[in-house]
This record gives sequence, structure tokens and C-alpha cells, in this order.
Amino acid sequence: MRISILLYDGFTMLDVVGGYAVLGWLPGAEVEFVAERKTIIADDLRSGGMAAWRDYSEVEATDILYVPGGPGGRPQMTNEATLAFVRRLHETSSWTFGVCNGVEILAAAGILKGKTVTTNYYARESVASFGAHVVPDRYRRDGKIVTTAGVSAGIDGALYLARIIAGEDTAKTIQLGIEYYPHPPFSYASPDEVPDPIREVIRVAEESILFERMNSIPPRFAQPSL
Amino acid sequence: MRISILLYDGFTMLDVVGGYAVLGWLPGAEVEFVAERKTIIADDLRSGGMAAWRDYSEVEATDILYVPGGPGGRPQMTNEATLAFVRRLHETSSWTFGVCNGVEILAAAGILKGKTVTTNYYARESVASFGAHVVPDRYRRDGKIVTTAGVSAGIDGALYLARIIAGEDTAKTIQLGIEYYPHPPFSYASPDEVPDPIREVIRVAEESILFERMNSIPPRFAQPSL
Repeated sequence: MRISILLYDGFTMLDVVGGYAVLGWLPGAEVEFVAERKTIIADDLRSGGMAAWRDYSEVEATDILYVPGGPGGRPQMTNEATLAFVRRLHETSSWTFGVCNGVEILAAAGILKGKTVTTNYYARESVASFGAHVVPDRYRRDGKIVTTAGVSAGIDGALYLARIIAGEDTAKTIQLGIEYYPHPPFSYASPDEVPDPIREVIRVAEESILFERMNSIPPRFAQPSL
Repeated sequence: MRISILLYDGFTMLDVVGGYAVLGWLPGAEVEFVAERKTIIADDLRSGGMAAWRDYSEVEATDILYVPGGPGGRPQMTNEATLAFVRRLHETSSWTFGVCNGVEILAAAGILKGKTVTTNYYARESVASFGAHVVPDRYRRDGKIVTTAGVSAGIDGALYLARIIAGEDTAKTIQLGIEYYPHPPFSYASPDEVPDPIREVIRVAEESILFERMNSIPPRFAQPSL
């Protein structure tokens, strides 16, 4: 089972790694990290870098197309090379998995029209503007499309998808493998319950600060061709 | 605030990224990824690679020393270069943060004698054999040492540490930033409640299969010097 995870400049590391930590352990999984150019792709914090060792031209088709989010996701929504890649792989994928504002990239590629999806809470209106029906869930399936809320929700959504693909025992075994019995020091059931002042900080951050910060700091490492 | 995250061949990606996604957003945080050699370090699945852009000699001291786990952690327990690095940075760190069997590396470095710590559930006896008092908690603080249970527990432990360092509002804001309102499809409160057949699969996997698998598969990418 081929799993193709998209990377792009300014992705959020946990958007990628939450789902990867689950789906990568499915029996027979072969994960590849794909980007427009094969190099070390810098994340939103500019200190983290992940190896993309396939480029778009090397992936003809895949079983699971995995699109993460991050402050760098917005420019991808008008990057025709990325949108064409997403459209092409989605055409024959068994599953298309979108995390956080990675769902916006799927929407911009035109594949969510009429679909019911979730996304991170600040991207809901944007995703809806592409004709998707957006629900405030942690994860949501519509046919072969599985979408999740922001960042860490990729873990829950991937466990849900793992159960569909490989059965409940396997999914529970992976859950134990990553010891995912979460117990955050402060609990809310959803972002909608978080007090307004905190929501406001993140709204402003998500809408501009993170993107500007990302663009003003160069990656902390060399980016040789791989 | 300097945060130095250790990478080594065969680390587990979520051990690193769970805590990084939290601590990396602390005000003034400067994260660096450190390994014995500056290159792309391959994870346990061999398809994931992260850039280590500092080597041991380049880090004289740090504020937060962060040691993740993974199947590749065991060889590090007898790698004198790594143990000396951990000992040296721990001497003056403000905080030393160990995730999963990364706690075993801290133990092997001799810095946990008489300390109360947690670790992933299958490493409890090993960590105790180095003179630590091991509790089955999700995360645990003893002085400047904060340790967590397996893999994804790094998220909870890092939020706990973020609250100590930067206060509750900041920690809650980071929690919203990563939308950490977990809702796994199947819930247990701890690994100790998981049914025995699943525990047995993971015990065998953790004790030999993962390490052998890691060693039998070469990294899927080039590893140039950075």
C-alpha cells in the first residue's frame, strides 16, 4: 500500500507526523515523501526540515494521498503544479487524506465540491467557499475522502482510517504502539469551547503572523538536491 | 531560549515532533536539531528523515535538552559520544525532557539515579534498573527533569512544561494552535488497560521486531553532510 505524503515549504510538522505515525505502521505500508523539488523541506518554524525524496513527476498513482497543512499551505492553493499533482493522484487514489488547512489545498484543487468535510476551525469559511459542506468535527469521512481538524487531529483521523483499512485490532495495536491515550493538562472537547481571548490570539496568528514569520526567517539548514 | 533536540538513527518521528510542536512555539524559542553527524537522520520506518544541522561539538550548553525515543534508542545507551553529550548538556540545562524510551538514554547516561520518572510502558523495568523510581504516569516532573510515557505522550508532557515555563494562558494558546482536543476512535486511559493480546503484539514488536526491521531496511534517501 503506497502512501504519498505531500511536503511544501512552510508545512506544519505535526500535521505530517501525526498521521504518518499511524498510517506508516499499517501492514504493507510504503510511505514516500513527495514535493515539487527533492530536497529538505523547511517547516513553518524554519528549524525543522524533512526529506522529500520523490518529486511530483515520480509519482504516477498512489493508494493514499496525504495532504498536510501549515502556514505555507496558502501559497500552494495557487501553485498549479501542486494542484495538478493533487488532482491527478486523487483521481485513482483509494483514499485521500487531508489534515488541517491541507483541506484548503484539496478544496482549491476542486475535488471537494459537494463533499462534507472538516478542517481546522479558522479555515472553515475558506473551505466552504469552494463548495464543500464544512462540519466542525474532529475527523469526517465522505466516500474516499477523510479530512481532519487542525494539526494534532491528524492522529485521530488516521486511527479512524486505519480501522477502516485494516480492522479494529490493528488500529488498536497501532494506538498502543504510539501510546495514544491522551491526557492534556487542560481539557476542552473542541476549539469552539476555548475562551475568546485565546481564540483571538490564534486567529490573528493563523491569518497573518505565522505566514509572515515563516517568510521572514530563512531555513536554518542547507537544502541540497536529494 | 535554546531548545536542543537529539536525533539519532532509528528515532521515532512522533517522539520528536509531538513535543517540538508545543515547545517550538514558546515565546523566544530557538530550536536546533542535533546529532552525532550533521545529515538527514533516518527514522524507525526508514522513509522519514529529519535534518540534523548541529553536531555534538557545536552545542556547548542549552536551556532545554530534549531526548526522544525510538527503536534506535537502545544502541545509543552504549554510544559514549551520545551519553557524554547528554551528561554535559544536562549539567547546566534549565530543563531536561525525555520522551518514551528516550528516558532509557537519560538513565544510561547516569542522570536519573534516585529520580522519579515515567517512560513508555515496556521500558519501565529497564529504566528502573538504572536506579530510577518509575511511575506509570503520562508525564512526570522531578526537579528540572520532565519525562513522559510513549511517543504521543510527548505532546501532553510538553504542554505541562510549557505551562511551567510560560504560564497557563500561553500553554492553552499553543494547545489551540495545534488543536489538541484529542478524541481517539477507541479510548483507554492508559496502556495498562489495553487487552493482553494487543499488549503482547506490541511487547514483542518493541523488544525485537522494530529494531530488526529498522536495521534490515536502509534509509530511502541520500544522507549528504549538512
